[in-house]
Amino acid sequence: MTNDTICALATSPGGAIAVIRLSGETTFQTLEKVFSKKLSDAPANTLHYGHIIDGTNAQDGKGEMVDDVIVSVFRAPHSYTGEDAAEISCHGSRYIVQRILQLLIHHGARQAQPGEFTQRAFLNGKMDLSQAEAVADLIASTNAATHRMAISQLRGGFSRELSQLREQLLQLTALLELELDFSDQDVEFADRKRLLLLAETISSHIQKLTDSFQTGNALKNGVPVAIIGAPNVGKSTLLNTLLHDERAIVSDIQGTTRDLVEDVIQIKGITFRFIDTAGIRRTKDQIEKLGIERSLQAAERAQIIILLTEPNVSFPELRIDSKPIIRVINKCDQNMPSSSFLYHKRTPGQYIHISALKGDGIQLLEEALVREAALPELSDTETVVTNVRHYEALMNAQSNLQRVIASLNAGSGTPMGAATAFQPAPTIDLIAEDLRLVLSDLAEITGGKITSQETLNEIFSRFCVGK
Amino acid sequence: MTNDTICALATSPGGAIAVIRLSGETTFQTLEKVFSKKLSDAPANTLHYGHIIDGTNAQDGKGEMVDDVIVSVFRAPHSYTGEDAAEISCHGSRYIVQRILQLLIHHGARQAQPGEFTQRAFLNGKMDLSQAEAVADLIASTNAATHRMAISQLRGGFSRELSQLREQLLQLTALLELELDFSDQDVEFADRKRLLLLAETISSHIQKLTDSFQTGNALKNGVPVAIIGAPNVGKSTLLNTLLHDERAIVSDIQGTTRDLVEDVIQIKGITFRFIDTAGIRRTKDQIEKLGIERSLQAAERAQIIILLTEPNVSFPELRIDSKPIIRVINKCDQNMPSSSFLYHKRTPGQYIHISALKGDGIQLLEEALVREAALPELSDTETVVTNVRHYEALMNAQSNLQRVIASLNAGSGTPMGAATAFQPAPTIDLIAEDLRLVLSDLAEITGGKITSQETLNEIFSRFCVGK
Repeated sequence: MTNDTICALATSPGGAIAVIRLSGETTFQTLEKVFSKKLSDAPANTLHYGHIIDGTNAQDGKGEMVDDVIVSVFRAPHSYTGEDAAEISCHGSRYIVQRILQLLIHHGARQAQPGEFTQRAFLNGKMDLSQAEAVADLIASTNAATHRMAISQLRGGFSRELSQLREQLLQLTALLELELDFSDQDVEFADRKRLLLLAETISSHIQKLTDSFQTGNALKNGVPVAIIGAPNVGKSTLLNTLLHDERAIVSDIQGTTRDLVEDVIQIKGITFRFIDTAGIRRTKDQIEKLGIERSLQAAERAQIIILLTEPNVSFPELRIDSKPIIRVINKCDQNMPSSSFLYHKRTPGQYIHISALKGDGIQLLEEALVREAALPELSDTETVVTNVRHYEALMNAQSNLQRVIASLNAGSGTPMGAATAFQPAPTIDLIAEDLRLVLSDLAEITGGKITSQETLNEIFSRFCVGK
Repeated sequence: MTNDTICALATSPGGAIAVIRLSGETTFQTLEKVFSKKLSDAPANTLHYGHIIDGTNAQDGKGEMVDDVIVSVFRAPHSYTGEDAAEISCHGSRYIVQRILQLLIHHGARQAQPGEFTQRAFLNGKMDLSQAEAVADLIASTNAATHRMAISQLRGGFSRELSQLREQLLQLTALLELELDFSDQDVEFADRKRLLLLAETISSHIQKLTDSFQTGNALKNGVPVAIIGAPNVGKSTLLNTLLHDERAIVSDIQGTTRDLVEDVIQIKGITFRFIDTAGIRRTKDQIEKLGIERSLQAAERAQIIILLTEPNVSFPELRIDSKPIIRVINKCDQNMPSSSFLYHKRTPGQYIHISALKGDGIQLLEEALVREAALPELSDTETVVTNVRHYEALMNAQSNLQRVIASLNAGSGTPMGAATAFQPAPTIDLIAEDLRLVLSDLAEITGGKITSQETLNEIFSRFCVGK
């Protein structure tokens, strides 16, 4: 493990102020060469006003003043990374930030890799891997739900649940080994039942976590919605009305978690992502010859479908049964039937009447979207898996655990581990080996198992530089 | 003067971390309601790790954790604003920033106006007005020259020069009043000469400052350059080559100081701004029927003209004598004459041979641009006026001072202030009044004179929020 001194801009460039981070053994030696005050004896958690001086071209020994700054001093191990660290709060000019970073690099620091500060925090035991990943999620959080999930994971909710599972697995292993020790003797059949019960408890716990991934993924990436309807029924107008409705906060997710910018709204803390809006937006200008195919593709990828028509025109037929469909009649500018306000749940005969142009009925549609998303209210304590890497590790753990359960069931009827001609004693060793795989799968999530540098690099590469 | 507590995001949103600023009398009362630690007794210039807790919807009295943060504590008068102040360093999610700002506002803080923190620093005597303006310039600085000018102004270089002028003006006023006191007696002619000499010294000093504005403006906003030539000689290729040359750092000035994004390059710390590049870029596709007129307009607004042609085609004629013209022959891909490397100063017979396509000769052209810009090397101590408001105040001061000098000259030959039938004694009072106007003009720059709230608002409105 290297702990050379790294530096990076930690804020977005271009604000009133910018913050440059430094971390590593020689943080204060490097700072001393560029800062007007001596910080080697500065106590931890103190702030120091002074100048950044560029002495690299100084002929008079005075150097050039680069900026008025405030330096925050952190001392190992009580810093974010666990190392000696500092933050330089300077004026937010890109030029100044560049000059200061160049100076720091000139004096021995190195430009940090994406997520390298958090990676050091992990390597120094300040947080486990799932907590480190929560930091990236927290930075990317755009609504109440993703924020709450990230905070819960950062505070170690998931980690505690995993360590609980780990304890149960160790208990199971201990029981197995006990049985191995007594395998010469006649072991009671009840023990096998107890083993199976414990294994199935663990399995259902893991199942609960993997099940939560769908919710977590919907909350994190948004519930995909498709607006489908014949040409000129007002799909584009409806999309614009939804995007500009005050109740639906439009978020401008960009760059942080995905490169694609999509039309996204938030209603009551739930993110809805509109699919194929490029197609919808284009319909005004283009002949919709590809309309039907496009619609079907969008419908397939959607979790909720808004089926749109206008008065006296029947709804397009969609051979999709498994997904919630919200039927909406647009252009009800006059004589909006009051019955439309009765829409509460998906019943084939019920429609929502709206006027996308005037905004009438839009609130009803939004409420229907929230209802059809059917996302559970999250409590502060409930763990929701939001990370694909965690999901995959849990799926592997489940698959290995299922082999354990199958082995336990297979041996049923004869005392397990009893050496017979057909089933030699090492069977228990094999089950124990499978259990170790389950433990190792779970350990991957928190990084408790030694994790390869490549895996770490991959995990931290999705961080921004400076974190 | 109000000092209610204001808050604002001080960094650009979207980085790894974001910094929220608070300033005002009740800073720590407000913070106490949202931060997990008590800060009322925290010493000045210390850092505190803790949580931001939203207790507004708490039913169990515990509240919801919004973020892990570090709070910096500043105490009046030793803060940027001179008031009690704090900075919250949180995770850079827009959602989190929004939540924290909402919480602070819920607990008594107010969203700050643009530049309001710096305005308070001025009102509390932490800096004068020209220094406050230098803060905005510093944040907007994009190259070595604008950075150096802003730093010099922030450190009070300009302010010191103005206070020196003020002392000379007060000396002049004192001498005038002395003469007034002795106006009954016969005053020596030499005194008039001394007054005139002093007034002219001051005037030439002000002249030096107003003269520097052209340089300052060129350095701050870039030296305008026009590329002019017949269709198809390679104007667009040359522009692209200049913009993408490694030696010429392209800066992406956007939003901070002007809304228009122009093609801008920096060579040796000097910014060059290409005029009518939209026209140049368009020539590839469009017939250049408006070519000549466009070129002339661009040439008029430019400070330097690049006249472009190709081998065996004569240069277009431009009836402009007063501006440097760099004559460039493009498409010299083969047999580039080595004589081209002899171009050193503007001599009608000398050309630069280039190949815009291959990049040959571009360095020579860049050197010529730097040479023709003829911007003086700035020393750290020299004051350069960069601000239109300052320039106008100096122009007013000069005009009032010229009236003083004219009055002194007009009375020449007769003892000044001597009451005659044609020239009554109050003349000296009138001169003294003009001198007071000069003093007041200069005081406007530093804000030493009581400045109206409207003027302050106008000055600070060009700041970003959070500064």
